[in-house]
Amino acid sequence: MNAKSSNPDLLADQLAAEVAAVLRKREPTSEAWGIKLLEARLGYARIQMHVRGDMLNGHATLHGGIIFAFADSAFAYACNSANAIAVAAQASIIFLTPAREGETLIAEARELGSAGRSGSYAVHVSTADGRAVADFQGLSRVVGGPIVT
Amino acid sequence: MNAKSSNPDLLADQLAAEVAAVLRKREPTSEAWGIKLLEARLGYARIQMHVRGDMLNGHATLHGGIIFAFADSAFAYACNSANAIAVAAQASIIFLTPAREGETLIAEARELGSAGRSGSYAVHVSTADGRAVADFQGLSRVVGGPIVT
Amino acid sequence: MNAKSSNPDLLADQLAAEVAAVLRKREPTSEAWGIKLLEARLGYARIQMHVRGDMLNGHATLHGGIIFAFADSAFAYACNSANAIAVAAQASIIFLTPAREGETLIAEARELGSAGRSGSYAVHVSTADGRAVADFQGLSRVVGGPIVT
Amino acid sequence: MNAKSSNPDLLADQLAAEVAAVLRKREPTSEAWGIKLLEARLGYARIQMHVRGDMLNGHATLHGGIIFAFADSAFAYACNSANAIAVAAQASIIFLTPAREGETLIAEARELGSAGRSGSYAVHVSTADGRAVADFQGLSRVVGGPIVT
Repeated sequence: MNAKSSNPDLLADQLAAEVAAVLRKREPTSEAWGIKLLEARLGYARIQMHVRGDMLNGHATLHGGIIFAFADSAFAYACNSANAIAVAAQASIIFLTPAREGETLIAEARELGSAGRSGSYAVHVSTADGRAVADFQGLSRVVGGPIVT
Repeated sequence: MNAKSSNPDLLADQLAAEVAAVLRKREPTSEAWGIKLLEARLGYARIQMHVRGDMLNGHATLHGGIIFAFADSAFAYACNSANAIAVAAQASIIFLTPAREGETLIAEARELGSAGRSGSYAVHVSTADGRAVADFQGLSRVVGGPIVT
Repeated sequence: MNAKSSNPDLLADQLAAEVAAVLRKREPTSEAWGIKLLEARLGYARIQMHVRGDMLNGHATLHGGIIFAFADSAFAYACNSANAIAVAAQASIIFLTPAREGETLIAEARELGSAGRSGSYAVHVSTADGRAVADFQGLSRVVGGPIVT
Repeated sequence: MNAKSSNPDLLADQLAAEVAAVLRKREPTSEAWGIKLLEARLGYARIQMHVRGDMLNGHATLHGGIIFAFADSAFAYACNSANAIAVAAQASIIFLTPAREGETLIAEARELGSAGRSGSYAVHVSTADGRAVADFQGLSRVVGGPIVT
């Protein structure tokens, strides 16, 4: 008997980290946006991104679409973390402060609740020094089998 | 110097509780729905409601509008808790499981972030025995002066 | 061959009106809020409600929960209109102007799109004289069989 | 008196088209995603984008973040169309069907209502041949002066 099998929570978290790493590798968008996976556990993910000049909108602040995409990426790692393919059915985002070129953003996703194939998740987006940028809420639906076999 | 003035956090929480009590008394809806205020602190509120037969929809489960109204009430106590009149600019809700006649629901609201006059809040609605019913996210805007003078 | 069977659209609209009438009768909330069904067609519903004193919040304007519940009722008539039981999986609402005691509100729901068991709907809430009060967007999911047999 | 000044609606639409063109030019993201502005009028915009391989998520369908960003871009053209800087305060999106590499998407944004500095907008995203992909609803707030002087 090894250390792994003796702790089901730890096993679940290790699997979640593997799933996130696989998804991360498959997504050209994560590479393009420079998304760095900081932590992935069962029902949880934390990621990082630097705001670049090519991510700005017509008002010279970070494009709301990129803020959403960044939050959505954290959501995806969290809602796929049980190794069952899940997709977003819906998401809602509140924009609190604009983000500017050169800033580092953190998105932290966690599961709020679940029922059957559905799950609700919150993602908080902030700057590295703690300023609130956006709050995201997403509804996921499990639609398929394992990501890591 | 009394105990009150020596602890600013405690003072803020006492004011939040007073504000919630005033709002609660002013709202005929809270009375009609039998909403009970369990706890109110700065940026936080927890309330309770029993599902009655006159709250059901055409499918014999709790009307989604009442679930929302219940979550929205918790949101209102939390976003007015600093004693500045705040209103909802937007809200989003995910329905996870239906609630049935006779069940007791708990809504727990907490502030996620704020910037200027805007604030983002999450409200989790569950049954008293912990089943997730709905997750609500709201955007508040401060529009006026004090509630308690 | 009668007039009915010669026009499938008309038949669908007649069925939608029957479904709405059945749901309306089953809902004690609609009775309590005085909701009047003005029109129901396939993928569409329009309803009316008068703002009463017992519907106000602590700021003496119509409770956001009641505005949502009103919009949600129109959504329910529209998303059940094909005579297959559908429930709300998620909904989002933007509050534009407060509504006051004595005003008459109209909620108009229409289907935006659908895929499989899912449907997206918009509900516009306005006063009888055309002031925009709120915009609601909902995601429905078909979960069961016929409402009218 | 020239043709321009004789038609205020036409003038407003011409200004909206100029504003959209200016915003479009300022946004490196629009260039990066190959967004094409098809039409811009007061309170309305229609844009187009082709789904490329570098826009896919870990499940080989168009990243939800890109779908949102695309809808958000149409929203931005529509809510800035009166030549007053407006930003998104909140947005909500329902995902109906996945989009695949090689497909052409259309996003059509239109104003639903407004009050003071706030506006509500709907954006429907579909494929060029009419399949519903997503429905977006956004809340804008005017925060500044003219875009075109």
